[in-house]
Amino acid sequence: MWTFPDRPFTETPFTAPDVAPLMQTEAGLDTAHRGSNGLGPSLRFGGQARERLLAAAGPKALSLLEAAANGFTVPPLMILPRAFVGRVLAGDKTAFAELEEALVRWLPVVGETEGAHYFALRCSPPDGSPLLKTPLYLGTHDHREGAGADRRFATDTYRRFLLSFAEATGMARGLFDEVIFDALEVWGDKPLSHLTQAELDQIVERFVTLYGASHRDLPPDTLVGQLDAYIAYLRAQRQDPVPLVLQLMVFGQRDSEAMAGVATTSCPQTGEPEASGKLLPSAPVSDVRDDGLWARPLTALREVKALRSTITAIDDLARRLETHTRWVQRFDFVIDQGVLYLIGFARVERLSQEARFCLLVRLVEAGRMTREDALMEVSPSEVESTLHPAVDPDAAYELLASGLPASPGAACGRIAFSSHDVDALHTAGIPAILVRTETSPDDVPSMLRARGVVTLRGGMTSHAAVIARGIGTPCVTGATGLHISDARDALIVGAQSLGRDQSITIDGTSGRILKGETPLIPAKPSPAFGKLLIWANEKRRLKVRANADTVAEVEVALSFRADGIGLCRSEHMLLSSERLQLMRKMILAANKQARLEALERILPEQKGEFAKLFRMMEGLPVTLRLLDPPLHEFLPSRESDIDELARAMQMERTQVQRRISELTESNPMLGHRGCRLLITFPEVLEMQARAMLEAAADVAQMGIHVRPQIMVPLVAMNRELEHVVNSFRSVAQTIERSRGRLPDYMIGTMIELPRAALRAGDIAELSDFFSFGTNDLTQTVFGISRDDATTFLRTYTDGHLLEYDPFQTLDESGVGELMVLAIERGRAKKPELEIGICGEHGGDPASIDMCERLKLDYVSCSPFRVPVAQLAAAQSWIRHADKDGQGT
Amino acid sequence: MWTFPDRPFTETPFTAPDVAPLMQTEAGLDTAHRGSNGLGPSLRFGGQARERLLAAAGPKALSLLEAAANGFTVPPLMILPRAFVGRVLAGDKTAFAELEEALVRWLPVVGETEGAHYFALRCSPPDGSPLLKTPLYLGTHDHREGAGADRRFATDTYRRFLLSFAEATGMARGLFDEVIFDALEVWGDKPLSHLTQAELDQIVERFVTLYGASHRDLPPDTLVGQLDAYIAYLRAQRQDPVPLVLQLMVFGQRDSEAMAGVATTSCPQTGEPEASGKLLPSAPVSDVRDDGLWARPLTALREVKALRSTITAIDDLARRLETHTRWVQRFDFVIDQGVLYLIGFARVERLSQEARFCLLVRLVEAGRMTREDALMEVSPSEVESTLHPAVDPDAAYELLASGLPASPGAACGRIAFSSHDVDALHTAGIPAILVRTETSPDDVPSMLRARGVVTLRGGMTSHAAVIARGIGTPCVTGATGLHISDARDALIVGAQSLGRDQSITIDGTSGRILKGETPLIPAKPSPAFGKLLIWANEKRRLKVRANADTVAEVEVALSFRADGIGLCRSEHMLLSSERLQLMRKMILAANKQARLEALERILPEQKGEFAKLFRMMEGLPVTLRLLDPPLHEFLPSRESDIDELARAMQMERTQVQRRISELTESNPMLGHRGCRLLITFPEVLEMQARAMLEAAADVAQMGIHVRPQIMVPLVAMNRELEHVVNSFRSVAQTIERSRGRLPDYMIGTMIELPRAALRAGDIAELSDFFSFGTNDLTQTVFGISRDDATTFLRTYTDGHLLEYDPFQTLDESGVGELMVLAIERGRAKKPELEIGICGEHGGDPASIDMCERLKLDYVSCSPFRVPVAQLAAAQSWIRHADKDGQGT
Repeated sequence: MWTFPDRPFTETPFTAPDVAPLMQTEAGLDTAHRGSNGLGPSLRFGGQARERLLAAAGPKALSLLEAAANGFTVPPLMILPRAFVGRVLAGDKTAFAELEEALVRWLPVVGETEGAHYFALRCSPPDGSPLLKTPLYLGTHDHREGAGADRRFATDTYRRFLLSFAEATGMARGLFDEVIFDALEVWGDKPLSHLTQAELDQIVERFVTLYGASHRDLPPDTLVGQLDAYIAYLRAQRQDPVPLVLQLMVFGQRDSEAMAGVATTSCPQTGEPEASGKLLPSAPVSDVRDDGLWARPLTALREVKALRSTITAIDDLARRLETHTRWVQRFDFVIDQGVLYLIGFARVERLSQEARFCLLVRLVEAGRMTREDALMEVSPSEVESTLHPAVDPDAAYELLASGLPASPGAACGRIAFSSHDVDALHTAGIPAILVRTETSPDDVPSMLRARGVVTLRGGMTSHAAVIARGIGTPCVTGATGLHISDARDALIVGAQSLGRDQSITIDGTSGRILKGETPLIPAKPSPAFGKLLIWANEKRRLKVRANADTVAEVEVALSFRADGIGLCRSEHMLLSSERLQLMRKMILAANKQARLEALERILPEQKGEFAKLFRMMEGLPVTLRLLDPPLHEFLPSRESDIDELARAMQMERTQVQRRISELTESNPMLGHRGCRLLITFPEVLEMQARAMLEAAADVAQMGIHVRPQIMVPLVAMNRELEHVVNSFRSVAQTIERSRGRLPDYMIGTMIELPRAALRAGDIAELSDFFSFGTNDLTQTVFGISRDDATTFLRTYTDGHLLEYDPFQTLDESGVGELMVLAIERGRAKKPELEIGICGEHGGDPASIDMCERLKLDYVSCSPFRVPVAQLAAAQSWIRHADKDGQGT
Repeated sequence: MWTFPDRPFTETPFTAPDVAPLMQTEAGLDTAHRGSNGLGPSLRFGGQARERLLAAAGPKALSLLEAAANGFTVPPLMILPRAFVGRVLAGDKTAFAELEEALVRWLPVVGETEGAHYFALRCSPPDGSPLLKTPLYLGTHDHREGAGADRRFATDTYRRFLLSFAEATGMARGLFDEVIFDALEVWGDKPLSHLTQAELDQIVERFVTLYGASHRDLPPDTLVGQLDAYIAYLRAQRQDPVPLVLQLMVFGQRDSEAMAGVATTSCPQTGEPEASGKLLPSAPVSDVRDDGLWARPLTALREVKALRSTITAIDDLARRLETHTRWVQRFDFVIDQGVLYLIGFARVERLSQEARFCLLVRLVEAGRMTREDALMEVSPSEVESTLHPAVDPDAAYELLASGLPASPGAACGRIAFSSHDVDALHTAGIPAILVRTETSPDDVPSMLRARGVVTLRGGMTSHAAVIARGIGTPCVTGATGLHISDARDALIVGAQSLGRDQSITIDGTSGRILKGETPLIPAKPSPAFGKLLIWANEKRRLKVRANADTVAEVEVALSFRADGIGLCRSEHMLLSSERLQLMRKMILAANKQARLEALERILPEQKGEFAKLFRMMEGLPVTLRLLDPPLHEFLPSRESDIDELARAMQMERTQVQRRISELTESNPMLGHRGCRLLITFPEVLEMQARAMLEAAADVAQMGIHVRPQIMVPLVAMNRELEHVVNSFRSVAQTIERSRGRLPDYMIGTMIELPRAALRAGDIAELSDFFSFGTNDLTQTVFGISRDDATTFLRTYTDGHLLEYDPFQTLDESGVGELMVLAIERGRAKKPELEIGICGEHGGDPASIDMCERLKLDYVSCSPFRVPVAQLAAAQSWIRHADKDGQGT
């Protein structure tokens, strides 16, 4: 048990912990304290005692005590606990007497001799409280009569004492600075250490004059007197009690060998493990801080041979300090008479991500931290921003509008209202941001060329959002408040009108749209980041698959070691312009025969794409979803595009228009799509089944292990699934009759409608796997269309009706209950049922945590989110494994 | 135990039941049989024995046996059971000998004397099997030599015998008819009963010649010989065994006093309880049937004094027969020598509804049926068709297209494509059917004037459907296959093009659209129908409320004794053109101030309407739903209407267009509506709260008991409800401060989203009642937009993927489970929670049955469906109360 002295200088065990000064010497805390604290190799005091010490002494004093206790060379110090300071400030004469008594006992211990030692009285307030100005060089006296051996040092010290005491007791520093500036104007600009004795004397005289001019007495000439005067000042100011630390000063300015510096233990930007900061020879720390002008960067000094051993010592101190505190520290140091003193240190809160990742890796490798703890220190959102360019957080910006963070990353570019605009800018080598009301398959080529995409309508699952995430282009959707004026050929934001000649910056990570070109920080995944990800991948139970439809996306997924494809939207392969024309031919077909002809031409295209995916994903599962979107999504909506389509199809415009209007739906999200299409257009299902199975067979024949998982979308009733599964298997039988046994495949369903969750028992009997489509499940459970929710969800989150956006983070108490139910019912019927999730939530850490708790087999998310999900999965495993007592 | 004789004429108990003839005398079954059957006052044989008798004797014979056993005067009969006939047909000589023996024993019993008695051999096949031609007048002999006392009768009988036997043994009747036609052409057209003896003789001669010309022997001259010859014919035809009935013939043609007739026990159209049919004096029944030409309708004969007692006897027979069989029967009768014989009878399957209702009421009042049984005999769909005009089921029609049965009833009229068309036709006094792609609030005035409404889009809950049901106008929505061609100014159906000059008939009960004017049957609720409804209302537990928004709808609801208003859509009061303009002003308001001004003007309108409902519904609950639809539903979509609106609002067209486009949603069903609107536009909620509370207070001050129930729509989260309830109560407090205590009111919520059902426990804590909005709940549980489902739901129901349309009948295993869950969780938190349902399912009998099983407090449906629901509720109560042992 750590206890505090209840009265000064008693050496018997203390009982009242925080009402008397606490001494500490260069050698550390006096042994009675160290013994009772039981400090071993650990730097930190533990448990309840530490809490009490922190309250009494404050964090700054505590950090110094701890450093000293762990063998760092810290100048001797005495702590005046908060309650003790309270007594003194209240005018308790006994208290001040106790302080005097403590000084009498302590000063011999620290080796004080007249004129040789000075003290600083620092405050150590609770974190976040304002600091008092620190009176330095307490214990000095007016040197002007009878200075000691080193007159110059004494004079300069007195100058510093006067300035510091004046400032600490409320005088304006500016008055004193002016004195120096005025003098240097006459004498020429130079470091104050280069002043002559005469010049110094003049300055001290002028300081003394300033005191007089301010109707102040000069400070007393003794340490006790100075403390008394300072406390009297604080009392007059009605200062609240605050712990104080009286610390022996060491001197960077004592001689030409001495020096002082301020540094961080590692570079806070790069994380490079070497001291990074400034050094000022022959100067106190305060000079380095106050006036960096003459200080030299440590990096520059590393080349100076003469300083090599000094810098090695500083680096060594930095390493020890960082390892022991388990974080990067900003620290002050002084080299005085050949000793490197640690004066103070504080945790560097704002490390760059890279620096933090480096630090964590070092701490783990140094055995100071477990991998689990290191992983828990990384926020999944950091992973995301590490992988994408970001808006410089320090840059000024003008916010034009906000929308949904549909695809992460930031980009700048000129406004482009059409594919044509994008192409023109692209040709001219100018980055473009495509801004549209909403996008359609016709826009995909220009989306590939644009740096970013903004749509005024649509949600996280709109066409623009899905495509952009897939191709890794930053995208903001549902940007309400923006309006495209065809008449004015401009983007209207309130009273502003932005034309094609203007640039904007979009931040797809936060959903912001900024005016002009805002500085960006590039993406920079580092080796440390890579190592953390490897550890995360070793620590998780949940598999992480990618939602990937194209070769490019699969490449990204593989680069992040995805465990498979959890969702390949088979229709996305059909969006390139030639294939799209075929799809449109199929949709516009006047009869089944014409439709079959179009499908016959789509088949090899679709099959070829599937084969590519199977080859690339060798040995890993590839989940292919059958056609899902309503057919009108494949048709154009703009008048000019309809004209063009009619020409291309050699049809009457009115015929095309009529078919479009037939296919138009009031609520397409709840319309003729998913398995409903497969049932009403069995020839489409047949084509897709052939493409999937033949591709799998072809690739398997090449000796490549294929693992197809066929996924049926939008099932509400087990009979729907039964119908589709039977049709699929009958195609399989036909193919097997002609070419022999097909590779094994799984066939399963999405659980994305409440009814499917409720009937999961029946449905499981027909399924090899379930994949929760949590986008649609959330839409139907809440009755909220994601595309239309922007108008009121903001009001909900702002008004605390919703804690979070349920389209980003799974709603555990609603959607989650249906998932629990589906899992229970599904596994009750079929214990080996594979269960995953492939909605947007698959990349959301909080949702992944829920998936871990529900013991899902995998999550699947967009390729660029795979690392985010991997980390989140590891964190969830660590979190819950700990609770279950299975953790490391 | 009823047993059959195993051999003829044995009087000891029989063991083999169905291999020997069974005799029956005029006085009924011989006593051995009657005794063993234990027939008491009941007409029907009961239990297993009856089943065996039915199999052996066939339904026709059984009905005659039963009638005889119950005291009806049936000519004596002998039954040849199916197995026995089988033996005879197989050539079993013993069997024929048994038949001969049986005849020897039986003929004396029936009082047979040479030449005086003849027999018919009728078959009694299982229901639905084809009948054999019946040989009549068996036992007659060639009269030409030595006819008895009545030569004319004997000659005519022999003519009839020859004809009948010829026909029964496969000769073409046409040959014999020609003989008569030829003769009558010479002698002049007259009833055959008016032929002279000479003429009769000539005809018999020609018949005999016809036999010879067909290389046939004349039939034998004895009963046994004739039976043998007939059986030989059946055997040659490889006739399957069929029960036969040998029955003594009585003679409607015996003398001028005799007569025969065919009648129903009540009028099958009107249900009037008097015999209705035809009577032919001095003729056999076969003449009445074969040649109604000379028969006179009973109704016409009722005025003939001489026949009064005869007709009274027939009526009496009819009444007895109907009461004993508990149904309307078609029966043959003969009056021979002053005795009224019942020859045969069969249940009339196709009674008009009215006739059935009359019958049921009579049976109940006669104590022959319980009220419960009578109510179970009525189908709820009959109630609906009783209340609305229907397409004549016997009329020919040409089906143009089918859609959803959105509002019941049938109507004919000219095609009208616009309000303008309807108005023009209305002015000219010509009925109009409004045909539109979909309707909007602008169309309401013309919907009121049209006879019927067809929309090409939309479902059971579309604007057109809801309005049409409310105003009782027949309506078909989602009529796929129809297309309105603006270019051709016509309705296109396949290759047909129908213009304004053409008429169509729509059947909103079945969803059919027919070409031209098809005959209709008018609606005709009868007193019997009224009485059944009263009984239904006495027998039900579930309350039946009406969904009613307007005074007209409330009047209908009250006329059907609805138990309250279960859903008043507060916005429907705002659809008249002046109020609609105010709503639009509110929606288009540039700022909150302008919106408040518009609301201030809407307030008195809304309040006035609420006050009317409270007054009309004195003492009954009135459930007022707060604003539900998305705001864009109040705005026009047609270009011309937008222009007009801009002019009326003195706004720029582009401004109006922009606001419309801002409000346009991808999936409005899941959009910014319901409580979401009330939360984002608190001023709208405040206006409605004031209107509801002040109206209630005003009406209460008039001494009228008001029972307002405030209903919050589209709640997904309890915080939404909390927010709205708090806002509502705070308005209430404000009003109470100024005018004193308000009448008590309930405040509750719709449960129409899966999440609300799941979170029903939390939500119940804030609710006085739940009302299941099963339309939206079904849409979200299935993920199917009712408006868009027409394209695939038909495929589903046709392909047996769905047993029924879940938008008409509650899906018990999906939606139902969520309802069960919500009820359990709600009542667990608040046992006194009132729970009802106000979706379309509230009027569907199967769904109402489920509501009864779930112990809901009430169902609410459109006013015209209230009686349907009342009956269904009674039937459900009877059905389940029986099972629970609580029934009567």
